[in-house]
Amino acid sequence: MFEKYNVEQKLDLHYRYPVVFTENLFSKSNGELKQFFKDQGANQSIRLLCIVDENLLEGNPKLIQEVEEYFSEEGMPALVSTPILLKGGEALKSRFDIVNELYSAVAEYNICRHSYIMGIGGGTLMDIAGYVAATSHRGVRMLRVPTTVLAQSDAALGVKTSMNFDGKKNFVGTFTPPNGVFCDIALLDSLPEEHYLPGYSEAVKVAILQDEPFLKEIEDLSKDIISREREGSLHVIAKCAELHLKHIATSGDPFEFGSSRPLDFGHWAAHKLEQMSDFKMTHGESVAFGVALDVTYSYLVGKLSEESWRRCMEAFKGLKFELYHPLMEKSLNEPENPESMLHGLEEFRQHLGGRLTVMLIDEIGSGYEVDTMDMTILKDAVLTLKEY
Amino acid sequence: MFEKYNVEQKLDLHYRYPVVFTENLFSKSNGELKQFFKDQGANQSIRLLCIVDENLLEGNPKLIQEVEEYFSEEGMPALVSTPILLKGGEALKSRFDIVNELYSAVAEYNICRHSYIMGIGGGTLMDIAGYVAATSHRGVRMLRVPTTVLAQSDAALGVKTSMNFDGKKNFVGTFTPPNGVFCDIALLDSLPEEHYLPGYSEAVKVAILQDEPFLKEIEDLSKDIISREREGSLHVIAKCAELHLKHIATSGDPFEFGSSRPLDFGHWAAHKLEQMSDFKMTHGESVAFGVALDVTYSYLVGKLSEESWRRCMEAFKGLKFELYHPLMEKSLNEPENPESMLHGLEEFRQHLGGRLTVMLIDEIGSGYEVDTMDMTILKDAVLTLKEY
Repeated sequence: MFEKYNVEQKLDLHYRYPVVFTENLFSKSNGELKQFFKDQGANQSIRLLCIVDENLLEGNPKLIQEVEEYFSEEGMPALVSTPILLKGGEALKSRFDIVNELYSAVAEYNICRHSYIMGIGGGTLMDIAGYVAATSHRGVRMLRVPTTVLAQSDAALGVKTSMNFDGKKNFVGTFTPPNGVFCDIALLDSLPEEHYLPGYSEAVKVAILQDEPFLKEIEDLSKDIISREREGSLHVIAKCAELHLKHIATSGDPFEFGSSRPLDFGHWAAHKLEQMSDFKMTHGESVAFGVALDVTYSYLVGKLSEESWRRCMEAFKGLKFELYHPLMEKSLNEPENPESMLHGLEEFRQHLGGRLTVMLIDEIGSGYEVDTMDMTILKDAVLTLKEY
Repeated sequence: MFEKYNVEQKLDLHYRYPVVFTENLFSKSNGELKQFFKDQGANQSIRLLCIVDENLLEGNPKLIQEVEEYFSEEGMPALVSTPILLKGGEALKSRFDIVNELYSAVAEYNICRHSYIMGIGGGTLMDIAGYVAATSHRGVRMLRVPTTVLAQSDAALGVKTSMNFDGKKNFVGTFTPPNGVFCDIALLDSLPEEHYLPGYSEAVKVAILQDEPFLKEIEDLSKDIISREREGSLHVIAKCAELHLKHIATSGDPFEFGSSRPLDFGHWAAHKLEQMSDFKMTHGESVAFGVALDVTYSYLVGKLSEESWRRCMEAFKGLKFELYHPLMEKSLNEPENPESMLHGLEEFRQHLGGRLTVMLIDEIGSGYEVDTMDMTILKDAVLTLKEY
């Protein structure tokens, strides 16, 4: 009676979006956004709500005016209001009251599924703006203009939106591809020092894990990066972005339905340290600690040569990263204590859904996965980093 | 300097999920869920949070016990707690406080991305449970057990999750395919009369729009449906489900990025009337009014023959639908008055993103789209229905 009515539903979704690198995106002579909206067939009847990271304004006092002038030109969508200002930072990601205010703005300004939200700012602003775009009307169009090294090379390029809930990082969110990403390299000039160099840790991470020649380039360009020479910075950021995007596109699992998360290399400790520091540590700094730890572990278990291990450590040092932090040693003999960094491994296992998968390396550019880590060797790794 | 770094990101997602019809899903002898979890490789280490529509319990006092016993068997995921009870109904969809309580339950019971949320209930329960599943950890697995005619034939089969925000229906939500849908036809027995017959309006709608032989079947089976004879009801519900699923899968636009929304046939007026009635009118009733209106319009503009028009009206009448409601006449001469049903056309245009697309029919089973409707003829259509 029933069998004949059963259906296997098959849905195939195809997303395409451009990731563009440029400088001075909102100067009148810059054609990138004009070309994008032309390709999309947009015009003044299409609406755009702009959300800007307040942190940008000190270094770029004319940004709002430039955005408003840019969108006043013919062929561009209509800016529905002066840009909404939000102060980026981890605290923003707990602000569901701001999510509600943004929903109200979406309603008030008639932002529909064919309208755009444009977020201009760092990773946290992109997370909340992307979340609002993903969940308003079941998804309005989203354009990302990431303005930090980390956001341009990694965090803002991909398919994740997120909020923190009840103290739990990224507990609420969606997988939602944006409609376009526009990285303005000139906006990095005004980044404060503590948000500039640490942003390169994702580039070092992906080079160590996947691409030895890229690590060589980072080593060669480290002085240019430190002196904020644009062409060298652009090369490293864009190359990191390319590797990140390629991974998402070719992994066969862009929305992470499975367990394998190679780009989470070093992240079990990184997330935990970030949280233990009450987010005073930046994500970039914590990734360097986490990657250094798992590289050192790879060396101590005899998989990675001493020479390659030293080279990884020096690559981080060349960009002025610290490789050891006192929090790494907290409750080091109590991996079951939630106050220990080592407890991050158990939290990562839960996050993955019960089966632990940790990426290690047996050579620079070559990763392998394990499903368990030796606590004694992990402690050795911490002490090795302390003495380095 | 920049061009070489630009990337066109391409993501292809492939979703597969079973839609199963059965009876007595949670009786020990029913193998559907056992087979599903076996196919998924699940076991007791996989966790499941169950959310049940309180409205079901009066007619099915043993349901909770049956669910608990069913999941206690070997090879099944672990039920993390006794099922959470929520009272289904339109009011539930505004309860973001309940969304937060459910997030807390997801955290407390360690529901991860490989765990399941199972919703058992009508469309509104499925909407909120699906929303929580879609946004917790950027998506935990979702199983739907729809328990009303409307949910089994249409609302709970697809890819939408939704909440109402600030009085706006479905303002917040996502497109997120479930991992499986299990329709238990026996659960329809206890549906109160006012939620039973009106649920068939989506079946009549899709038959009129797409499938004349199916309309014939509905006409032939209408007595069986009225007397709640299971085999006839199953046939109409499952056939409606099949057409609905096929449309989503083959439209080329399952997440509705474009403007065309053929299954929204009759829905511009339906949504408006439902809202004008403060949701005292069921969605099923309102769809019948909306479809009857647009079919009558199709007749009055000379596209549909009188014979076919009468046949559509009689198909609804055969299932005891009303075709006219006084709200349809409210402020009928003032289409720009938000209190007029006719204003629903403008609201629908905004909902679609600025370009109106309304589906009409030129024959039973054959739709065509228009981008404008004549207000004078629409008024005639209302009066024609009043007199019918």
